Amino acid sequence: MEPVNVFDYEILAQACTEASAWNYYQSGSDDEVTLHANRTAFDRIRLRPRMLVDVENCDMQATVLGTSISMPVLIAPTAFHCLVHPEGECATAQAAGKAGTLMVASTSSTRSLEDIARASNGPLWFQLYFHDRESSGELIHRATAAGYRALVVTVDSPRWGRKERAIRSGFRLPPHLHKANFTDKYPVEVDASLTWETLAWLRSLTSVPIILKGILTAEDTVLALKHGVDGIIVSNHGGRQLDGVSASIEALPEVVAAVNGHCEVYLDGGIRRGTDILKALALGARAVLIGRPILWGLAAHGIEGVCRVLELLRSELELAMALAGCPTLASIDPTLVKVI
Amino acid sequence: MEPVNVFDYEILAQACTEASAWNYYQSGSDDEVTLHANRTAFDRIRLRPRMLVDVENCDMQATVLGTSISMPVLIAPTAFHCLVHPEGECATAQAAGKAGTLMVASTSSTRSLEDIARASNGPLWFQLYFHDRESSGELIHRATAAGYRALVVTVDSPRWGRKERAIRSGFRLPPHLHKANFTDKYPVEVDASLTWETLAWLRSLTSVPIILKGILTAEDTVLALKHGVDGIIVSNHGGRQLDGVSASIEALPEVVAAVNGHCEVYLDGGIRRGTDILKALALGARAVLIGRPILWGLAAHGIEGVCRVLELLRSELELAMALAGCPTLASIDPTLVKVI
Amino acid sequence: MEPVNVFDYEILAQACTEASAWNYYQSGSDDEVTLHANRTAFDRIRLRPRMLVDVENCDMQATVLGTSISMPVLIAPTAFHCLVHPEGECATAQAAGKAGTLMVASTSSTRSLEDIARASNGPLWFQLYFHDRESSGELIHRATAAGYRALVVTVDSPRWGRKERAIRSGFRLPPHLHKANFTDKYPVEVDASLTWETLAWLRSLTSVPIILKGILTAEDTVLALKHGVDGIIVSNHGGRQLDGVSASIEALPEVVAAVNGHCEVYLDGGIRRGTDILKALALGARAVLIGRPILWGLAAHGIEGVCRVLELLRSELELAMALAGCPTLASIDPTLVKVI
Amino acid sequence: MEPVNVFDYEILAQACTEASAWNYYQSGSDDEVTLHANRTAFDRIRLRPRMLVDVENCDMQATVLGTSISMPVLIAPTAFHCLVHPEGECATAQAAGKAGTLMVASTSSTRSLEDIARASNGPLWFQLYFHDRESSGELIHRATAAGYRALVVTVDSPRWGRKERAIRSGFRLPPHLHKANFTDKYPVEVDASLTWETLAWLRSLTSVPIILKGILTAEDTVLALKHGVDGIIVSNHGGRQLDGVSASIEALPEVVAAVNGHCEVYLDGGIRRGTDILKALALGARAVLIGRPILWGLAAHGIEGVCRVLELLRSELELAMALAGCPTLASIDPTLVKVI
Repeated sequence: MEPVNVFDYEILAQACTEASAWNYYQSGSDDEVTLHANRTAFDRIRLRPRMLVDVENCDMQATVLGTSISMPVLIAPTAFHCLVHPEGECATAQAAGKAGTLMVASTSSTRSLEDIARASNGPLWFQLYFHDRESSGELIHRATAAGYRALVVTVDSPRWGRKERAIRSGFRLPPHLHKANFTDKYPVEVDASLTWETLAWLRSLTSVPIILKGILTAEDTVLALKHGVDGIIVSNHGGRQLDGVSASIEALPEVVAAVNGHCEVYLDGGIRRGTDILKALALGARAVLIGRPILWGLAAHGIEGVCRVLELLRSELELAMALAGCPTLASIDPTLVKVI
Repeated sequence: MEPVNVFDYEILAQACTEASAWNYYQSGSDDEVTLHANRTAFDRIRLRPRMLVDVENCDMQATVLGTSISMPVLIAPTAFHCLVHPEGECATAQAAGKAGTLMVASTSSTRSLEDIARASNGPLWFQLYFHDRESSGELIHRATAAGYRALVVTVDSPRWGRKERAIRSGFRLPPHLHKANFTDKYPVEVDASLTWETLAWLRSLTSVPIILKGILTAEDTVLALKHGVDGIIVSNHGGRQLDGVSASIEALPEVVAAVNGHCEVYLDGGIRRGTDILKALALGARAVLIGRPILWGLAAHGIEGVCRVLELLRSELELAMALAGCPTLASIDPTLVKVI
Repeated sequence: MEPVNVFDYEILAQACTEASAWNYYQSGSDDEVTLHANRTAFDRIRLRPRMLVDVENCDMQATVLGTSISMPVLIAPTAFHCLVHPEGECATAQAAGKAGTLMVASTSSTRSLEDIARASNGPLWFQLYFHDRESSGELIHRATAAGYRALVVTVDSPRWGRKERAIRSGFRLPPHLHKANFTDKYPVEVDASLTWETLAWLRSLTSVPIILKGILTAEDTVLALKHGVDGIIVSNHGGRQLDGVSASIEALPEVVAAVNGHCEVYLDGGIRRGTDILKALALGARAVLIGRPILWGLAAHGIEGVCRVLELLRSELELAMALAGCPTLASIDPTLVKVI
Repeated sequence: MEPVNVFDYEILAQACTEASAWNYYQSGSDDEVTLHANRTAFDRIRLRPRMLVDVENCDMQATVLGTSISMPVLIAPTAFHCLVHPEGECATAQAAGKAGTLMVASTSSTRSLEDIARASNGPLWFQLYFHDRESSGELIHRATAAGYRALVVTVDSPRWGRKERAIRSGFRLPPHLHKANFTDKYPVEVDASLTWETLAWLRSLTSVPIILKGILTAEDTVLALKHGVDGIIVSNHGGRQLDGVSASIEALPEVVAAVNGHCEVYLDGGIRRGTDILKALALGARAVLIGRPILWGLAAHGIEGVCRVLELLRSELELAMALAGCPTLASIDPTLVKVI
């Protein structure tokens, strides 16, 4: 039957994905404490719905850094889409456009950023893993030239977390695939010496907004504001980097409080339901990013699968807003939730 | 053997109910977080019993909005009783009368409100889903004419929650059944634009007391009092509307505090034991409403089944009052419980 | 092999006990929430052991109401010992004497209080269920005459809790057994009208100390002191009366604080380990009472089984005291525990 | 395949260890509440990682009481290494040296302290179980002569905890093995009369630093400082002594606060991951001790297995430091963790 929710796509996707690739995507690092926390933390947030509000039309139209999107749901940067679909990131980008939302294309994409931009008919941001200054400068130049509207710098990955399920199943990128943004001269490893100073240098290279992905503390939020970032994505990298950090939804209030309205804050990690999105918005996120479910849709049914995953989330969010008495995004505020 | 408790009726009922109808009744919305919370929340409330009180006669006689009932237990409005019994809501109403309690008949009943009133020999309230002004006005007129003593306006359902178990099992009302209160001219959908203003209009239509069903916050309680309601049913619709809201027993104290004695408060959701009723009364409910267990009794043994479910709850409540040292409803107060 | 701990006796006992009798003993009331809480509550109490204390000799010698016992462990009153052993309560009493401790004989014993007293060579208390004034007066007279040193009045049982496992297995006292303390003229039912006034009347009948069994709140503790009781047993009747009340170890601190040293306090419920005893003593109990494990020992190995259960607890308590740095009972205080 | 983490060595070790010896090593005392708490407590500590810090070189070099080690990870004293490897503690000591760390040799070793010292090419501490003054004095004299740099006095074992899994499997030291440090004249039992006065006497015997192993409370920490100890190992003996005490990581903050910088504090118990070490360091431990995993490595692959276990922990700690933004041990402080 037709998938009823996003979890149904997880099942469909597993059935048509090679085992080691599946383990690569699904795995968290080490004992997967944070991976699981990303889900269970939502269960400790109770919704406080308001009644007798006119919710005939729930308006989900949002903007992120001035870009209009049809709902406050972005496609998170994830690696290697060609593992699950021949068109890879190009297919995902087309789905994003169809859904009226924005895709964050990953440095580790299996289609080049230019190919993705050509395939896309919607807004794009470019996610940057910093390998070294030369390659990063070149990637930023190319991304800007290709029309990417913002730069998402991942700051939680000076090294790669150990995804033990992937290690045990011997995951390697198959020979016919490669990181399409890279030439042979690029360094293979990320640069563990990336600092706030490097960020200032990145800032000087481009005039597009810069967003930091992976901030989890108030202390780093203060530093981010001091360095003039335009947005923060609260994220623990899907539980794939340091195991034992907070669920991203748990870390959100601390970052939102420290930001105090001075830049946009987004939430990445564990979103599977419309009510999860509602909770994140209530706690101060301007939008959320969706990672694995997009890959599940792509693996199961290609472009249509990604669209369907996004439409499931859209209709769940709309229903959740209606049942919570929130006809607009502006009406969603912290009184809508209680953490237990 | 004879059912020992209400849960035994759940087992008996499942055995004689068509699977998709069963899933319709049992399902909560989405991940059923709230459905389960409705039960587990009771386990976090400890009773503090008092000893050496004369409990030879425990008096459970109660009144709700001036109507005498034999115990503080009402029959909650639930849909489609003909799914499990040929006489449907008429059978349930007869059982309510036999038990000396009150039934809240649902807009979505499969027997007309007039038929139910004719079958009943006890007090009735009418639950209203607001579809539009015309049909609602007509229903209120009919209900008042038929002798229903109060109007229970469900306010948590501007749209229907997604009961995924029901969706997966393809539940539809069978062709031989229909919503018996409706004529063809009535709108199929509930009206998502129902507001406090609409409520004021409803208030002007009738002089019977008006009760809101589905209030979960202090904020809405204050508004309800401002709009002159006569009662509030704290309810999350059996976990069938917005998933992730509090268990109704968790929301009760907040509503009771905000009501501050200015109207009656009832508790709906998760009651399966006499001690659950005792806990709800201790936290400020004047009475509780029973939903699914009534359907279990009806499915298993018809009128007698409903009676037996009510008698099980009655005898459990009486025993609980005796063991807690509470010979009267008035002696049940917040010192009887401790939330852990 | 030789049983290693008290739980081993539970397994042995089940193997040699008729199923409905087993269910009668093991069952709690209703959903057994309190029955399970009685055990799990101990896991939330952490011990804070002290080191480098001379614990070569750990002195467990205690007194309860002036009676010396070899350790702060009493045999709780439980019903119908002849169900598991032909000598019934007489066997248990002999074991108590051998172990140097005190047995509380139950009104509902299957051997008469006089038989038990004759069989015993240790101190005895008599537990009273109040059926009516005449029978109670007579029982108190008989108990005093037979040498029972104190009267334990059970106050949590104006009616019997519903032990559903026992009901389902059709438990009845077999025809060859009867409540040996009763003659035909005695009322079958306990008296639900027992009050503090009745207690004052009981007090006037005898000069032996009076202990209340079943107090769970500070409020009742204050009343008990006001009525001049000599001791309080904090107990929820092994989870067999009002389901949903606190674990007895959870209720202990409240009672101890209210007693404020004005009478002795004992703890009954869930004790299975020496460390459980240590925790109860640290929280202010003068001694603990053991219920089901005594029956397990009796069922499995008769007098020797009861002795062995008591010796297991004695050696566990002694070891626990040594490892906690407590060479005497007096050295056990609230700083030894932390509730988490 | 190559073991991916320390838990893989647990599986490998079980496969090549005699069952009763396995149960001896793995068992905790009584119900193993503390044994399990030692692991689960780490899950309630959330890491708060800092980003954009240069972590190209994470320096794990540490000192313990002035001795340089390559990482803040010591080998805990454990008994009877010859049970799992013919070279026993000599093999373990060689692995410690290869890994650039320090081994704490146990009184209960199956190779003599002199043999271990000869086999070792790294720093050693000697763990003392106090049996009596004569034997202890002699052991201290021998250990000092053999080059052991500190004395670790175990203070949580005036008696042995009951390891029920070991009892059930009938564990005994096989006839071909013995406690190699002991001659026939030594007492078999530990001395339960060991006190702070004895400690002062021990202190007078030697000028090497003295460390207490097994302190769990602030009160004992204050006494330890008063008696001039040089270090404290917060430990519950791997959950093998008093069951029901706190997880060692739970007790650490209390001890660290009481120490207030006046001596070194180490953490022993439950460490299986690099992030566990990071949490312990953040909460104030100068280093951690590893017990069972060392035996797993030794059982599975001898010296190389111990080395590999240590290298797994080293690389996990290094990665955890990098991902947490901590390039040096000095940069690890309490703001890195939040207890939930």
